[in-house]
This record gives sequence, C-alpha cells and structure tokens, in this order.
Amino acid sequence: MKLQIQKLTKQAFATFGDVIETEGSKKISINQGNIVRHHDLANVVVDYDNSGRALISVFECVSASALPHSVDIMERHPLGSQAFIPLSVNPFVIVVAKATEGDSPGELEAFISKAGQGVNYNPGTWHMPLICFSAGESFIVVDRGGSGHNLDEVDISDRQIIIVP
Amino acid sequence: MKLQIQKLTKQAFATFGDVIETEGSKKISINQGNIVRHHDLANVVVDYDNSGRALISVFECVSASALPHSVDIMERHPLGSQAFIPLSVNPFVIVVAKATEGDSPGELEAFISKAGQGVNYNPGTWHMPLICFSAGESFIVVDRGGSGHNLDEVDISDRQIIIVP
Repeated sequence: MKLQIQKLTKQAFATFGDVIETEGSKKISINQGNIVRHHDLANVVVDYDNSGRALISVFECVSASALPHSVDIMERHPLGSQAFIPLSVNPFVIVVAKATEGDSPGELEAFISKAGQGVNYNPGTWHMPLICFSAGESFIVVDRGGSGHNLDEVDISDRQIIIVP
Repeated sequence: MKLQIQKLTKQAFATFGDVIETEGSKKISINQGNIVRHHDLANVVVDYDNSGRALISVFECVSASALPHSVDIMERHPLGSQAFIPLSVNPFVIVVAKATEGDSPGELEAFISKAGQGVNYNPGTWHMPLICFSAGESFIVVDRGGSGHNLDEVDISDRQIIIVP
C-alpha cells in the first residue's frame, strides 16, 4: 500500500501531538526587548509518579534513508511524550497513527517537515522510528526517563506500506 | 572590571550546570543501528510539587550584541533548570555565578561555546540574560513552567563588569 506524504501543519498533526515551530506561537518579549520567547511550543508529558523525568538527548543518524521507504516497525511511548527538533534545516519524514488501547497501530499518516519545524508525539502516539535523508543529521530529543514500561515496538512489515513523496 | 572569557568545557562549567554536547556522551545504538542516542545530556529539574512542568520554547534574538559587552543584569530561576541549545553553529557567550542563598550573585565567570554546544543552568545558577552575535539567531530552551516564584533579576551595573574576548 502506498502512503502519500502530507505537508506538516499544526492542524493536520493535532491528533498525534504538536508541531514545534515559531509560526503562530505565543510571543513574549523578554530581556529588555532583546529576545522574543516563542513560549511553550510542545506539551511535554512525563509520568512523574513512576520516577519519570524529562530528558534532553541528541539523536544522530548513522545511515541515510531515501523515498520510497517501507514502514516496517512502529513504536509508541505510553508514559511520556517525545519531541524531535532537527538541528538542520533539512526536511524529515514523520509516520504516525493515533494512540490506541490495542497493541497495534491503526491507520497510518505520513508527513514531511519544512525548515524550522519539529514534532512532539503525545504519549501513546504510534510512530515510525526516525529516518534521515543524510547521515550525520542530528535532532534534539526531549522525552521521558525513569522506570516503567515506556516502549512498545511492533513489526508491521506484513502490511507492505511504502511511503511515497 | 574586565571579565575574561574561558572556553566552555564540562569540567569548567560543572559548578553551574551541564554542557549539552555529544562529545563524551553515553551513546546508545537504537532503531536497528540507524541512530545513535546521545543519552540524557542535561539534568532537567522542575519543581513538580508547585504545578511545575517542563516546557520547550524557542528564544529568538531581536538584536545583535558584540564584545566587549557590559554585564548589567543577572538573573536566576530558583525552581527549575534552564537549557539553551543553539540552532546555529555560531558561538554564544555565557556569564554565570554560583547559586547562592543571598539575593545577589558572587564572583562571575564567562564562557564561550563552540559549534555543537549548549548549556543547562542548574536551578538557582545566576546567569546573564541571553545575548547573540547576530540578530535572528534562535535557541531551543527547555525550562520550567507553572506557578510559583521562578525569576529573580538583579541590576549589577554598578560593578562595571565588562566581558572581553
């Protein structure tokens, strides 16, 4: 099955999480007018009850991918959100499905970012593991650390889903 | 008084917080070997008891500064850490003083970053408000939202401290 890529917009992505971008942000002038704070761009959720805490990490791509690309594995983090903010202006591909009670994702949607956009997955939102178009690209990742079961992975290669531009 | 800039290193900055960089990180291979996760690069602290939560924001520089530069104002956030991760490879200047009980910073230290470095201030670490060398530069900021008193600002212009390269 071919999965067509959509443009990444706040509206189209709302079911799955946040688009992290300065466009349309709440702007606060700080530091004697020298800085604009684009405030609170993502709903960072961590399960604090379970020793959870917010982490800042960097994900670095070892290998480059290209389109068309098959969606073999989907994953979700039940106890926390996960934000990806690219450190380059290059687009990246996001494949998601709604958070569900069951142990397999439903219908998939694919998005492509533009320069200056990141994403934040809601807890439980199914997503394809990160792929990059160039090796060495890096992303700031804000997600949850702590004990508890916070990763489900499922192999959906039998669905034969191919992301197309 | 002239305040000489030092190179930003984990060791030199340890009293004040974390240097966010992939060098020397805990590296975890994930996503079938396609991604290196540089894990948990900053000690994100938020005062959860007081309705605190972690925020992701973007700080955008309106005006450019240059060296030498006077340190007129210092600030601190008693209830949470604050991380700054540049979205460019340009260096930025960090001026800090140890977290103290009193209402004014003690001895100041100044650092300059290199490409790929960010910083995370511990709760209470005194720091100069962000300055940039080019207007339009942006930083990912991870800090604390919620009620409670989380900002102290103090005017130290009477000390006549000038940051020099």
